[in-house]
Amino acid sequence: MPAAAARRRLAVIAVPPVIQNAEIALPSLDGDRLWRTLENAAAIGAWRTPGVQRLALTDPDWLMRDTFCMWCRDSGLSVTVDRVGNIFARRQGTEDLRPVMVGSHLDTQVAGGRYDGALGVLTGLEIVRWLQDQGAVTRHPVEIVSWSNEEGARFRPPMLGSAVFAGALPLDRALATTDDAGMSFGAELERIGYAGVVPVPGAAPSAYFEFHIEQDDILEQRGADLGVVTSAFPVRGMAIRFEGETAHAGSTPMSRRRDALVGAAEVVAALPTLAERHGDQARASTTRMDVWPGCTGIIPSEVVLTVDFRHPQDDALAEMTGQLDRIIQRACERRGLGATTESVWEFGSGLAFDRELAAVVRRWAQRLGVETIDMASVAGHDAYWLATIAPAQIVFVPCVGGVTHNEHEDIDYARVLRSANVLAAAVLDAAR
Amino acid sequence: MPAAAARRRLAVIAVPPVIQNAEIALPSLDGDRLWRTLENAAAIGAWRTPGVQRLALTDPDWLMRDTFCMWCRDSGLSVTVDRVGNIFARRQGTEDLRPVMVGSHLDTQVAGGRYDGALGVLTGLEIVRWLQDQGAVTRHPVEIVSWSNEEGARFRPPMLGSAVFAGALPLDRALATTDDAGMSFGAELERIGYAGVVPVPGAAPSAYFEFHIEQDDILEQRGADLGVVTSAFPVRGMAIRFEGETAHAGSTPMSRRRDALVGAAEVVAALPTLAERHGDQARASTTRMDVWPGCTGIIPSEVVLTVDFRHPQDDALAEMTGQLDRIIQRACERRGLGATTESVWEFGSGLAFDRELAAVVRRWAQRLGVETIDMASVAGHDAYWLATIAPAQIVFVPCVGGVTHNEHEDIDYARVLRSANVLAAAVLDAAR
Repeated sequence: MPAAAARRRLAVIAVPPVIQNAEIALPSLDGDRLWRTLENAAAIGAWRTPGVQRLALTDPDWLMRDTFCMWCRDSGLSVTVDRVGNIFARRQGTEDLRPVMVGSHLDTQVAGGRYDGALGVLTGLEIVRWLQDQGAVTRHPVEIVSWSNEEGARFRPPMLGSAVFAGALPLDRALATTDDAGMSFGAELERIGYAGVVPVPGAAPSAYFEFHIEQDDILEQRGADLGVVTSAFPVRGMAIRFEGETAHAGSTPMSRRRDALVGAAEVVAALPTLAERHGDQARASTTRMDVWPGCTGIIPSEVVLTVDFRHPQDDALAEMTGQLDRIIQRACERRGLGATTESVWEFGSGLAFDRELAAVVRRWAQRLGVETIDMASVAGHDAYWLATIAPAQIVFVPCVGGVTHNEHEDIDYARVLRSANVLAAAVLDAAR
Repeated sequence: MPAAAARRRLAVIAVPPVIQNAEIALPSLDGDRLWRTLENAAAIGAWRTPGVQRLALTDPDWLMRDTFCMWCRDSGLSVTVDRVGNIFARRQGTEDLRPVMVGSHLDTQVAGGRYDGALGVLTGLEIVRWLQDQGAVTRHPVEIVSWSNEEGARFRPPMLGSAVFAGALPLDRALATTDDAGMSFGAELERIGYAGVVPVPGAAPSAYFEFHIEQDDILEQRGADLGVVTSAFPVRGMAIRFEGETAHAGSTPMSRRRDALVGAAEVVAALPTLAERHGDQARASTTRMDVWPGCTGIIPSEVVLTVDFRHPQDDALAEMTGQLDRIIQRACERRGLGATTESVWEFGSGLAFDRELAAVVRRWAQRLGVETIDMASVAGHDAYWLATIAPAQIVFVPCVGGVTHNEHEDIDYARVLRSANVLAAAVLDAAR
């Protein structure tokens, strides 16, 4: 692979491991090793090259988990698994202190890229490998963590593993969650052998770092290599169920129909305008539309839409939700339907990431000559739940063109490696 | 069941079997026996009482077929099955002539009623039982036929069995058709033991009668018991595939999305207005909307809509199709999508039912005191395909409120029995 070879050559850009600080060596991660690890991981569940389809608790996720655990054990770490399948790989510290955690997730979207999630977990692994290489001594343990079912592509809600860890979602509810085929999260977790024994909710770490692609192109546009995430967009996920009546799709006059699909389509079609009314930062999406019966010749009587609203301001999000209610009501009146709206997830509101950890990241970035900008996260991340129980910090790196949840997701290795070195320094700083 | 008992009492309204014509006795079908047979059939695949879910080639369809064949054999008929699973039950005539066929289908919609299809097949059975009871002698054989997969609810296209019989659809294409689970029509036909040996296309009958609920409320509104179907609405079924791009449903700015679901929803939402522009008789429906990937957190990149257009005039139908093309084009431009439209079925255009058979039906209706109106069929029927190879006639009877493809489909037994007697006379007339 000439492209891969070219990328590996970029690894030499890494800052040399000279000591400029009495306590912390300026990190110089092994970029070659990190890219090779990322490539090996991308081969597990490879799909629509260069994409990855590694849905939570499927066979590819199983193989990825086994491989990750093997890599961790080979690096001298002790691996434990909690009851919701979150994996923790620990490098001991010198004192009996809470660990510094660094991680993300190894599951992907159904049409996923190589970096969303995996970059965070495997950069964590590279940092620990570097600590091992250096024979670094830390007071706190350093733990790499891989959270279960972050994407929510197979089992809802998203960020399920970290929500259970943080005590925001009861274990029994998480285990009872089913996929579209009716398989439960608990049964699938047992099947792949990752129903662990470590109790949940878990013990809060002393600090949590998550290294993640930005999933937009703001860093790229502004020429910065690192985004310090200081806030989150409030997010509301809603399931809207429309109820009409089945009837013959030919003989039934248009005026006598109670067509749930037409009503639902009117709502979906209204979402882009609804979002535009609330400025560039507003998001209104429909990701699922389940139509029943969905058979030739019959007018659908039931449609369930999954709608996702995001806005940096809580009051704007509330306004958007109110407008959605009115749009649904009008569609129902016009089409003779009933509708109910159920909240299926809500996160991000009032969330603040840790100021001290942010300052640590900025300080090391400056020392390593990496330009940073402060930013808000629009996508949800496991760090959201961690931030409710511990100091947490998300470090964003650019992804090419902001393309993500798409097989063409890509990164500029040299830029990402610079930021990974900043992360390594911040982790070491927090673990001293 | 007191309601059933009340219904059975209505059977005495049947005209007594006096002979007013040198050759044909005025029929007096056994309404009690017919309703009992309909009730027994409705128990096979009973669902959402009083509804039926008996999708083609499922276990309930299998049991219904076996039961129907048993009833036919018990009535002294010889049963054969053709290669696409159509069932023929023959009562011999005195001469080696082509049969008079009377039939419809025994499969139902996913949310079906008791009468759509079954009424036609089982009234055919009652007519033959009555011929047997009378020891009637006919020159032509009389055959009851049950066509495979009329509804198209599980396997597309609809009216599949009659299309193959009439030579309009190649057998291998019909057998290769798959359902949503990927099961082929051919494999399922083998599984239930109804891959028969009679070759297709089949031999044209001398006449074909189909007795069917109207599936609208025109007969009811006009107080007529019998509709003589003289023409058909031209129908076009289209599969429209929209292609956009997957992306993160949170972080991707609205302006950078190529959301296939929003584009498709804009088209669906425009259909009622499109139909209204073409008068009360126009129909524009979407029955299926397949969204991919349909996972939380990801913008759908592929949507396939199944759209069904009907209008009594060919030119109006062509205009509707042209307007649909422009609506699709505008949605694609607005949302950055590609789209292709594929024709998946087309029937009804230029179709004329047999004038002589229609005259026979009207004549016997008059003699039996049953008021008739001539009408067009909006729904597709197996008779459409039969009309391309033989004299064919559909006889409509009222269904309560025009409700159909719905578990609450119902009929007024007394009114239907009057029309069934007209059908019996017409069949006997054609078979003399």
